[in-house]
Amino acid sequence: MWPSIICLSYLLSNKTMLIRRKTFYIHHFLTEIHLGIVCVNSNFGSMELNEKEIAGFSKLNKRDKIYWLAKNFLYANPVEVLKEFAEYWHDNIEAQKLLDGFSENTLTNFPVPFGIAPNFKINDTIYAIPMVTEESSVVAAASNAAKFWLSRGGFKTEVISTRKVGQVHFIYHGDKKKLFGFFQDIKEELKRGVQHITSKMEERGGGVVDMELIDLSNLEPDYYQLRAYFETVDSMGANFINSCLEEFGKQLADKVRQNPIFNDAEKDLEIVMSILSNYTPDCIVHVEVSCKVEDLGTFDYGNMSAEEFAWKFQRAVNIARIDPYRATTHNKGIMNGIDSVVIATGNDFRAVEACAHTYACRDGVYRSLSECKVENGVFRFWMNMPIAIGTVGGLTSLHPLAKRSLELLGNPNAKKLMEIIACVGLAQNFAAIRSLTTVGIQAGHMKMHLTNILASMQANDEEVGKAKSFFSDKVVSVSAVREFLERLRLKPI
Amino acid sequence: MWPSIICLSYLLSNKTMLIRRKTFYIHHFLTEIHLGIVCVNSNFGSMELNEKEIAGFSKLNKRDKIYWLAKNFLYANPVEVLKEFAEYWHDNIEAQKLLDGFSENTLTNFPVPFGIAPNFKINDTIYAIPMVTEESSVVAAASNAAKFWLSRGGFKTEVISTRKVGQVHFIYHGDKKKLFGFFQDIKEELKRGVQHITSKMEERGGGVVDMELIDLSNLEPDYYQLRAYFETVDSMGANFINSCLEEFGKQLADKVRQNPIFNDAEKDLEIVMSILSNYTPDCIVHVEVSCKVEDLGTFDYGNMSAEEFAWKFQRAVNIARIDPYRATTHNKGIMNGIDSVVIATGNDFRAVEACAHTYACRDGVYRSLSECKVENGVFRFWMNMPIAIGTVGGLTSLHPLAKRSLELLGNPNAKKLMEIIACVGLAQNFAAIRSLTTVGIQAGHMKMHLTNILASMQANDEEVGKAKSFFSDKVVSVSAVREFLERLRLKPI
Repeated sequence: MWPSIICLSYLLSNKTMLIRRKTFYIHHFLTEIHLGIVCVNSNFGSMELNEKEIAGFSKLNKRDKIYWLAKNFLYANPVEVLKEFAEYWHDNIEAQKLLDGFSENTLTNFPVPFGIAPNFKINDTIYAIPMVTEESSVVAAASNAAKFWLSRGGFKTEVISTRKVGQVHFIYHGDKKKLFGFFQDIKEELKRGVQHITSKMEERGGGVVDMELIDLSNLEPDYYQLRAYFETVDSMGANFINSCLEEFGKQLADKVRQNPIFNDAEKDLEIVMSILSNYTPDCIVHVEVSCKVEDLGTFDYGNMSAEEFAWKFQRAVNIARIDPYRATTHNKGIMNGIDSVVIATGNDFRAVEACAHTYACRDGVYRSLSECKVENGVFRFWMNMPIAIGTVGGLTSLHPLAKRSLELLGNPNAKKLMEIIACVGLAQNFAAIRSLTTVGIQAGHMKMHLTNILASMQANDEEVGKAKSFFSDKVVSVSAVREFLERLRLKPI
Repeated sequence: MWPSIICLSYLLSNKTMLIRRKTFYIHHFLTEIHLGIVCVNSNFGSMELNEKEIAGFSKLNKRDKIYWLAKNFLYANPVEVLKEFAEYWHDNIEAQKLLDGFSENTLTNFPVPFGIAPNFKINDTIYAIPMVTEESSVVAAASNAAKFWLSRGGFKTEVISTRKVGQVHFIYHGDKKKLFGFFQDIKEELKRGVQHITSKMEERGGGVVDMELIDLSNLEPDYYQLRAYFETVDSMGANFINSCLEEFGKQLADKVRQNPIFNDAEKDLEIVMSILSNYTPDCIVHVEVSCKVEDLGTFDYGNMSAEEFAWKFQRAVNIARIDPYRATTHNKGIMNGIDSVVIATGNDFRAVEACAHTYACRDGVYRSLSECKVENGVFRFWMNMPIAIGTVGGLTSLHPLAKRSLELLGNPNAKKLMEIIACVGLAQNFAAIRSLTTVGIQAGHMKMHLTNILASMQANDEEVGKAKSFFSDKVVSVSAVREFLERLRLKPI
């Protein structure tokens, strides 16, 4: 099970070789750029240099892209820029090509810290959860909350539903009843018409679940909607759903055009667009924590009793239920946790964000996604959260670190991953409200931020100590810390 | 202006040296791990190995964190895991330490593609915009839309307002009128009481703008809110606002406690929490594009006229104005563009997301953020978007690539960056609706996705060609492509 000395040596030499290749590559690259300079832009014949507009940028190689960019937008020093971008490339050129392929016009990788929140007890299994976030104290807060609930029963979670939604939006000028009747007649035919797309998905237990026709012509003239429902099992399903919908749209228009019951105006049914909806109020996971109030312990260094904390915590959640200004930040905190796992596992955080916030205002007022109740001596904190993600397809198996994240989580299926993500969201929310209602949010935040800034300014241990005591009652900012250090460094010790 | 040969050589040797240091470091690291194995966990005396729960994880060094994680959650091969994580480290150990410091329990960097969308004409200046996104076709779509509008007047944008909001939430049992009267009396005193926090900000033109007392006791018993408004100039301002609010809260409670006009119950005013709101409906940027309908050109390979396109495009936007299912995905598309610049410039995308979506449902129905009108032969497409970001403070100057992004954009102030970000959002939305209403979303999406998957499977040119023709009418998935390639590779050529 453990690698032998031979295997280890192989790995080491392999690593060294990869880095040598990168060094060579960068050397070659820089030399080429340099030659480009010496030969007066010989490589840029077709490009208009010193022009901020450009045709065919996407077709340039990476070196020429960086060169053009640096020359026209950074003026001074393209070689320095290239060098800096190169520092973030993967050591292995093939691996870098794969990363570059995820997007377009890619110059380098933007590094976001990949950290671990251990001690998450979720339905009695312990997880160490990968989190990708640039915000300080998010991983620390999740870890603290996980640890807190570890000895209080952990997180209980359950997927309630997994239905996804898609829409064909169209314009129809004519007799509504005729359209609705016709739709009922062709519903099954439409489903059969996408069999070539759905057969594989059906083998895995998914497919088109249902569809309905919706009349919205009261809101927009002649506007109707074919709304279809899908199960996509372990994939997020965007490509699958969109392919089905585009086919539904084509077939619906064809069938109406070919049917003699419709007159000419009716036959002119026009598909406006066909696309999945990221709003999935029937793809829901429930998560909760609870314990006896007395088991909550004391807070704020013993100054706050369990009862007082429970009362204040519940108030804080209630406030976020009624005030959209507070709810926005409250839910933003939940998403700090959720997005970091969504990103770590190669899922699309914009989709999860959009859905969560639309769900938060489903009754017409934007509200907190989580709820809290203290009743009969029991503290209970929970939320129902729509999370449409996948553990197969998309980048989940293409991004090397997303693959690793899923491995760390025991290669969960989509339902299990929904549960894990929801737990991190609730943990994050618990930690934020605990800080807010006890010591305040700034104590921890400022400490983390100050440490960051001091590190970036290469402060030594003595300076760090002095800065921490100086800033204990002041607002931390880069300029304030720089000023402080400059003054400190001017003084003779 | 251009580096000399000497300077270039220096850069090269420096780069090589850094990479050598990294190789040495990893070598050392792996050897240590190996010794750890041979010496039967000698380095893990205080850790309970083979246990999924752990105390003091954050205090372990990076090697021990990875080792513990791999041993308990990946079982087989901690050395392989360490090697893979190490591949994503920055070549320079000091630079890596800085990145690690942004978050907690950091093991490595999660790479997200950093690309460029050129040709953005914004208020008559041309930009090449850095975008960080893992989603294929986002950068391509933004670039296409930018190019499209480049010859049609470009984007016009203007910041409408920049006011930020914060809240002190508190409970007060007693006479309302007394509280409101008292608040008016002490308002200026409260402002003066945070002078030690605000003086620097005031020098830069910001500070506390106003504050008001809000009675929400009809929704939650005895609940009131001190709502304060801030200008934070070029910083996002979270730390500044939170520091002011915590001070307001303390002072308010103190002043009530010390004033004889209040009785004992009233003196028991309790601060629940003090924190900024991420909902900033008065921090708004307007962006729009417009041109004569006839200047839109033709679409769908000449099959769709400018008039037809304008009509369909407007319909698509109207639909997203009335149907929350469509609006969610419509706005998600806008955020694809917005977040990618927010991340590239070191800002917090969860904050921008939460605010945008709350704003989208401000009238009680979740709606499209963008609007479109075709009138008097003119096509006009615009949005008002709340975007609270900064160009100083936070990670903007700490993250090396965020700093580079800001440099690429000409070191904009916060207002200018709001404008740039909003343009990318509108461009992204334009591109998405153009695709949806003409060729459909799948054509481009599938092509990009297929290319990705083929690259990850090391397909050669011939295989790529065959796969592209095979999948032209099928759903692309990793397993389907793998199957196709396997079948293809089995056949004798």
